[in-house]
Amino acid sequence: MSYTAGVVGGSGFTGGELLRLLDGHPDFEIVQATSRQYEKRSVGTVHPNLRHLDLRFSDPADLDSVDVLFTATPHGVSMGRIDAFLDHADVVVDLSADFRLATEDAYDRWYDGHDAPEYLDRAVYALPELTRDELPGAELIASGGCNATVTILGLLPLIAAGLVDPADRIVVDVKVGSSEGGAGGGAASSHPERSGIVRPYAPTGHRHEAEIETQLGTQVAFTAHAVDMIRGAAATCHTFPAEAVSRKDLWGAYRERYADEPFVRLVAGGSGVYRYPEPKVLAGTNYCDVGFAADARNGRVVVFAAIDNMMKGSAGQAVHGANVALGIEETTGLDFHGLHPVGAP
Amino acid sequence: MSYTAGVVGGSGFTGGELLRLLDGHPDFEIVQATSRQYEKRSVGTVHPNLRHLDLRFSDPADLDSVDVLFTATPHGVSMGRIDAFLDHADVVVDLSADFRLATEDAYDRWYDGHDAPEYLDRAVYALPELTRDELPGAELIASGGCNATVTILGLLPLIAAGLVDPADRIVVDVKVGSSEGGAGGGAASSHPERSGIVRPYAPTGHRHEAEIETQLGTQVAFTAHAVDMIRGAAATCHTFPAEAVSRKDLWGAYRERYADEPFVRLVAGGSGVYRYPEPKVLAGTNYCDVGFAADARNGRVVVFAAIDNMMKGSAGQAVHGANVALGIEETTGLDFHGLHPVGAP
Amino acid sequence: MSYTAGVVGGSGFTGGELLRLLDGHPDFEIVQATSRQYEKRSVGTVHPNLRHLDLRFSDPADLDSVDVLFTATPHGVSMGRIDAFLDHADVVVDLSADFRLATEDAYDRWYDGHDAPEYLDRAVYALPELTRDELPGAELIASGGCNATVTILGLLPLIAAGLVDPADRIVVDVKVGSSEGGAGGGAASSHPERSGIVRPYAPTGHRHEAEIETQLGTQVAFTAHAVDMIRGAAATCHTFPAEAVSRKDLWGAYRERYADEPFVRLVAGGSGVYRYPEPKVLAGTNYCDVGFAADARNGRVVVFAAIDNMMKGSAGQAVHGANVALGIEETTGLDFHGLHPVGAP
Amino acid sequence: MSYTAGVVGGSGFTGGELLRLLDGHPDFEIVQATSRQYEKRSVGTVHPNLRHLDLRFSDPADLDSVDVLFTATPHGVSMGRIDAFLDHADVVVDLSADFRLATEDAYDRWYDGHDAPEYLDRAVYALPELTRDELPGAELIASGGCNATVTILGLLPLIAAGLVDPADRIVVDVKVGSSEGGAGGGAASSHPERSGIVRPYAPTGHRHEAEIETQLGTQVAFTAHAVDMIRGAAATCHTFPAEAVSRKDLWGAYRERYADEPFVRLVAGGSGVYRYPEPKVLAGTNYCDVGFAADARNGRVVVFAAIDNMMKGSAGQAVHGANVALGIEETTGLDFHGLHPVGAP
Repeated sequence: MSYTAGVVGGSGFTGGELLRLLDGHPDFEIVQATSRQYEKRSVGTVHPNLRHLDLRFSDPADLDSVDVLFTATPHGVSMGRIDAFLDHADVVVDLSADFRLATEDAYDRWYDGHDAPEYLDRAVYALPELTRDELPGAELIASGGCNATVTILGLLPLIAAGLVDPADRIVVDVKVGSSEGGAGGGAASSHPERSGIVRPYAPTGHRHEAEIETQLGTQVAFTAHAVDMIRGAAATCHTFPAEAVSRKDLWGAYRERYADEPFVRLVAGGSGVYRYPEPKVLAGTNYCDVGFAADARNGRVVVFAAIDNMMKGSAGQAVHGANVALGIEETTGLDFHGLHPVGAP
Repeated sequence: MSYTAGVVGGSGFTGGELLRLLDGHPDFEIVQATSRQYEKRSVGTVHPNLRHLDLRFSDPADLDSVDVLFTATPHGVSMGRIDAFLDHADVVVDLSADFRLATEDAYDRWYDGHDAPEYLDRAVYALPELTRDELPGAELIASGGCNATVTILGLLPLIAAGLVDPADRIVVDVKVGSSEGGAGGGAASSHPERSGIVRPYAPTGHRHEAEIETQLGTQVAFTAHAVDMIRGAAATCHTFPAEAVSRKDLWGAYRERYADEPFVRLVAGGSGVYRYPEPKVLAGTNYCDVGFAADARNGRVVVFAAIDNMMKGSAGQAVHGANVALGIEETTGLDFHGLHPVGAP
Repeated sequence: MSYTAGVVGGSGFTGGELLRLLDGHPDFEIVQATSRQYEKRSVGTVHPNLRHLDLRFSDPADLDSVDVLFTATPHGVSMGRIDAFLDHADVVVDLSADFRLATEDAYDRWYDGHDAPEYLDRAVYALPELTRDELPGAELIASGGCNATVTILGLLPLIAAGLVDPADRIVVDVKVGSSEGGAGGGAASSHPERSGIVRPYAPTGHRHEAEIETQLGTQVAFTAHAVDMIRGAAATCHTFPAEAVSRKDLWGAYRERYADEPFVRLVAGGSGVYRYPEPKVLAGTNYCDVGFAADARNGRVVVFAAIDNMMKGSAGQAVHGANVALGIEETTGLDFHGLHPVGAP
Repeated sequence: MSYTAGVVGGSGFTGGELLRLLDGHPDFEIVQATSRQYEKRSVGTVHPNLRHLDLRFSDPADLDSVDVLFTATPHGVSMGRIDAFLDHADVVVDLSADFRLATEDAYDRWYDGHDAPEYLDRAVYALPELTRDELPGAELIASGGCNATVTILGLLPLIAAGLVDPADRIVVDVKVGSSEGGAGGGAASSHPERSGIVRPYAPTGHRHEAEIETQLGTQVAFTAHAVDMIRGAAATCHTFPAEAVSRKDLWGAYRERYADEPFVRLVAGGSGVYRYPEPKVLAGTNYCDVGFAADARNGRVVVFAAIDNMMKGSAGQAVHGANVALGIEETTGLDFHGLHPVGAP
């Protein structure tokens, strides 16, 4: 069985990653990639890893009808075009934040409101480890964001096992690469200013808090730092449970939750150089590596989670979600295991 | 007035940084640098920025008598040689952890005990912003460590102003460069394995907790990550004060404490690319930049502090401490302001 | 049809890359990976991208019999064990330099002689673009080296088309990543010393000159620089042909030679950010990108070639060579197209 | 004796570096820094290493009268404003290419002509190692460019000693950092696209050829590559002299020419990690390190030269030139020796 697929916003980083994955996916056939800026230019001009594709960007206004439409536009665009998107596809997988929150109120509070609030109830959030059962048959899928994904997957077993109480304070200290900022960007994103940094941005009040709390059901205090890599997001979560939590408790909770998950791996100690989750070894993969440590002296639990933000936090998760929604074996097209040695991909 | 100076452990990174600073210091004259491994080799062979020095490493067993001896040896060495060091100098400034903790008990708990506990009472901890008044006349100075320095300077005003209670939980999430690991190192420090990383190390129970708590009087839950830079340490401190703390409270507390400090700068918001502390712009300088944000939604205060770990966290702090101890104007020899643009120095 | 495969030296970078490729190759089944240092440890302990493999390193002295044995040991090892290797496999693919040169004399001149010169005639050099027809049926394959591969593929069409005369001087200025130095390494390979460099090494007399000249039939003046990446080799070749060479001549010669090559792409001008060969976009792929420019003002031709040195210059080429030797479709198992955006993988 | 100084174009990278140097120079007093884009903003907002300066950018149209005016504007601006510049200063030091070439013809050929050709004869080129004697008393100084400086200083002794004949082919293969592109920049300069690269740019016909040939009197075939550093330019020059040149000849020629030069150091072999010129150890310094090797097998001489392009190739050279022009001891204000360890500054 093969599905036709289109990508709206194909010249952005996320759009390019979608095209890379769909090109290697046996059950999808790419029929269209749109880009206003690069209309009529070959896809390989923008994405040098796609030079082998015989495909040119087309005008976003001229959508082909497809089975699945992946929309990778800046936040705010999809909500304005959602009717057209759904007219041209059986399933729309949106990679922006436009359908991730549950209510219009939430968009009023965290964004500048919402243009199509009537769709919020129809959208299914795609983080298959959390919402696998809701995806089959979905027509509008809101693919989970990078910072939310890495945080949620890090904390989920703690919450699920009751090791953390919703009243416990949770600090989430995230380190991210420059691809999160997208193509283009201003002075702060230029190589001389962006290289070599450990730069706090949005120290408080980051919109990802809303997405995390919506899905996780627990408040988190989130702070992000930009560091010198291109792909990758790493979350370190610190919490002080009221009841003591042992290393054994942690292994139990995480194994319980993730034993059968194809894209979550537990990396918590052991020998060798790579003992805890690190984003660089995940570049190009759809894995989320999760590790943890019990800090008896401080009554603290520390959780580490890492992803390639372009994959598990974006295009990979969208394909994963589409696989589940369509009944395709869920790891299909997502079988790259990463490189070693590798730098800052 | 000029003082003669010697550097024990001159071929290490810290020793080289000391030689760089002493060479540019108008009140010190370098008479000796020791290195077992590089004995008789010119200093410039190891430190390419010191090629202009006419100085060769000598055997550490043959110490010259000097006014001030800076000892930059691995932890555990100074405690075994402290008698010899003090025999050859009026003032010994030790850059290791050997005299930073207050009691033999603490060394039993955090290290492998102590060989010369009778000196612990005589040692004065050098973090001039904290111990300036105790330094004049000191004979044995224990120069503060990098992770402790950046954490203490970040949190000190909060504690001093009573905005944080000793019972409040404090998370310290630190990001450090590879120079902290020293010259040499094994597979984990090799370029292919160490590049591009966000790598948790010592996720809990780091020895710096002992140093921080000794000086700050408050327990902290500390976790360090290695990131892709050579120089630099950045601490992000998260705490949830029982009483609400406003941005104005924070400005008040930090201004109060640091108004007259020559090496602490407040960088908290504003415009431009560099709105919060970042280590890369501090490379080669003795500054500690400190910033903060009030997170009303989560009842949290976030503090950012950044240093060049080779400078404010090591050699720069040792020279600063020696300046204060000897009555030299305290910024002497520490007047480099850093570079822009700059990468990951 | 499936072949059993073993990897000698499986814990090195090249060995790990072989295991990655063989794991994803439908016609090979890995039965053994040896490592003296990591015997009995799981492969994933050393190579974090192979955590999914259920395989432990075994003692190199206990070789299993396999169809194809890939040997990824330091130079000088294979020549001493070649009898044992051939006893345990129908085909040995050696990734060291031990069988790349044609004569014992050459090993006397460039290396420290040769322990098994009687095998030099039997070995077939694997650079399929050059030696495709000689590979089927080969029992001992000497897989071409990284610097030689990127240089030869850059220059081959110029020589083949007669645009360059063997008497013309050819400068080859190469930039390479740190994976070329292998795992481990000393001070020069440590992250603090190796980061951010443009470092000349072996400015003249590099052994790769011997390999290049043996295969290309033309003398080259070779100089290599280490730069801040992990994977990748980029060769810039400068030559001054006696007769003027136009851009059209160049396109003709390169198209003629490479029109049907699956792993060579011509990238010479055009629009977008990536107009000439660049190693970073090739990370993980078996491509060699080749570009060129005619410099009429200086009577010069400039050729650019780039590879991932772990792939086209090492493990990828070995698998490519084995594919051809065994009659497997030659791109099998080598179909990764790379990532975008991507840093310094 | 103190001179007043102004900087036109103070918010660019070069302008910032000038302000850094003038701030630390005992004989200059900064009275003005202009910036159209950042008018009325403090200098420290743009250049975080100048936060201690009490100075705001002013409108470039309102020039103060100063003793020395440093103009760091994009190419083409100074030639249009040169009358105004000279009206407001006794000495103008221009850091653009506008007055570096000798004739209007040259600007017609390499640029888009020249607006004020009558000044070309009056301008003195500042590369003090080459033009020291012409600088005293100069009113209009054209400070030498980065790629030209590193190439000229690498080749000068070869030419001066007659070891290379003007008819010998010279290949100059240069590797440069991202600061050469200036602040801002488009997609190609963004962190995700610019990181980790070895990217050929202007493979042939680079304008620096004109500057090099004008000053050196010899044609060179120049190719530049962008690599992953911010500061730094490294030139590798390859030439094949008609007569054999030995290592001893090279040492003789380079010592003869550079024995008394304060900013040129010979680094050619020896022991340790840093055996040849490398830009990273020069960051922030005004040195040009020069090394070389004789390649008897290929009849080749290889020369390596490295600078910090912001310093010896730009602002440092401008201050050096002004020092010589004004009779100030020439190393004044240029005494920083660099850092070790250091990454990619």
